[in-house]
Amino acid sequence: MKQLAIGIDIGGTNTVFGLVDKDGNCLAENKISTTGFEDINDYIRELSTSIKQLISSLKEEHEIIGIGIGAPNGNYFSGTVENAPNLKWKGSLKFKDLFWEYFNYPVILTNDANAAAIGEMIYGAAKGMKDFVVVTLGTGVGSGFVSNGELIYGNDGFAGELGHTIIFPEGRQCGCGRKGCLETYASANGIVRTVNDMLRDSTEESLLRNYGEKEITSKMIYEAAKENDTVALEAFDFTARVLGLSLANTVAITSPEAIILFGGLSKAGEFIFKPTKMYMEYYMLNNFKDKVKLIPSTLVNRDAAVLGASALIWKEAL
Amino acid sequence: MKQLAIGIDIGGTNTVFGLVDKDGNCLAENKISTTGFEDINDYIRELSTSIKQLISSLKEEHEIIGIGIGAPNGNYFSGTVENAPNLKWKGSLKFKDLFWEYFNYPVILTNDANAAAIGEMIYGAAKGMKDFVVVTLGTGVGSGFVSNGELIYGNDGFAGELGHTIIFPEGRQCGCGRKGCLETYASANGIVRTVNDMLRDSTEESLLRNYGEKEITSKMIYEAAKENDTVALEAFDFTARVLGLSLANTVAITSPEAIILFGGLSKAGEFIFKPTKMYMEYYMLNNFKDKVKLIPSTLVNRDAAVLGASALIWKEAL
Repeated sequence: MKQLAIGIDIGGTNTVFGLVDKDGNCLAENKISTTGFEDINDYIRELSTSIKQLISSLKEEHEIIGIGIGAPNGNYFSGTVENAPNLKWKGSLKFKDLFWEYFNYPVILTNDANAAAIGEMIYGAAKGMKDFVVVTLGTGVGSGFVSNGELIYGNDGFAGELGHTIIFPEGRQCGCGRKGCLETYASANGIVRTVNDMLRDSTEESLLRNYGEKEITSKMIYEAAKENDTVALEAFDFTARVLGLSLANTVAITSPEAIILFGGLSKAGEFIFKPTKMYMEYYMLNNFKDKVKLIPSTLVNRDAAVLGASALIWKEAL
Repeated sequence: MKQLAIGIDIGGTNTVFGLVDKDGNCLAENKISTTGFEDINDYIRELSTSIKQLISSLKEEHEIIGIGIGAPNGNYFSGTVENAPNLKWKGSLKFKDLFWEYFNYPVILTNDANAAAIGEMIYGAAKGMKDFVVVTLGTGVGSGFVSNGELIYGNDGFAGELGHTIIFPEGRQCGCGRKGCLETYASANGIVRTVNDMLRDSTEESLLRNYGEKEITSKMIYEAAKENDTVALEAFDFTARVLGLSLANTVAITSPEAIILFGGLSKAGEFIFKPTKMYMEYYMLNNFKDKVKLIPSTLVNRDAAVLGASALIWKEAL
């Protein structure tokens, strides 16, 4: 009988869920809106009903072995989501307990970057590795650290906030209330801020001058870089310098075998990987030079978030 | 029959060794010079003879369960010491193999900061903790990270180099060849550099002006601070700001229950702890504020290095 794990990715807009086997094949997938429910109990009821429908739709004989959930600010120890800024329900949301009213499977919950790290370990670029880091370069910057084959949840379950390490103490205002966090530079939003600063402070011609300050996206910057646009290329260089410094410091602490980049900005391929690798090596302590791989996620083109969530279950089961 | 672990601390000047029970009592201790031997084989022979004499001197019936070694640049995986700048033997020194010629006990070797961390976990301030960091503020800055109850050795055995994370990319020249490493600011040598910079750049009166630039030590700065010397107090404040920032960033990555400060500069007590705690909280990401203890080592007044080394054995045995 085929064993399957349920993976649930709770995003600000949609909640995507799928049934995943131990090799990372998603046999069935569906989604519901995350935003349409004032009461979290209504949301959980609807989500549980949809998951049960998805399970019944399977022709193959199967056994469900657990539910893995990736959610912003998800806490592994408590099974709760704490004050997630992009969810409308406030306070401490007891997701694990709420699911227990509908399912008798083990439930494991963590934040999305940690789920991504476990996904890479079970199905992806970190297969067989015991020490690695996944850094998600999306709207913000998230990270998941694996050492000795185990995810570092830390004492309170919230470890892995590389995006909120301070690079420049007097730097850019961050959404977290402090200044100079990595994510104000090395995220999709960060590179947009860099381009806007550059357009304001220079007279350099640029394709990006065709857009208003609020229209520019990281994808546009990538497209301009492909056209050899100086501002776009310099923005990638600056972003890579900040990220490379942060990754070199990360290596000094945890000495990973590889750093895996994931998320929107990592799709810029060589425009981000090449200079980041260069600066990472430039800032690297001698013992670690040329030892640490900087590689892209191999889950990028599959449904990474659902796979990551389901991998939380396979991590325990395998 | 009483079980004992042999702890060996290999320092640049002396090699100290002792016989330690599981509660951290050192039943016998001795030392030999590290510097008097051109050939490492002569050094190991002399050290082994001295250890055997120490063992025979014990009146109590006992069983030796292993040899733990703390050494600069010691590698847990290979049992070697790699290019330690303060030892005269160069290249890769195969300590573990060399001891095997004289003893039939298990040998575990790591660097001194990692051994200190295990020492705190087995006998000291981190007893019962699964997630903590030990930061040694000595001539340089070392660190040992414990997560999920295990030391983070990393992929190559050299993890935990917090002292060589770069805080200011264009900052002070570091002995490692790069610029702006934490240890150029937050070590005993670092605070001396800070004071010398301050004396050069200001006209502020100070007790420390009674000494030449090369005479000043961190202990003198501590003594001056006790006399309310402005330069000394400002030097502690600046040191604490840099250290506090680095510790806040460390917390964001591994979310420890406690950070334990150890080594010469930590003996300045409230002059270093109070401002470091203040800046650490100032730079801390909201989720972690007021959650992480900043505490002194409780091994300080015992022979911490030998205890740490012996704890490597108890960690595996208990």
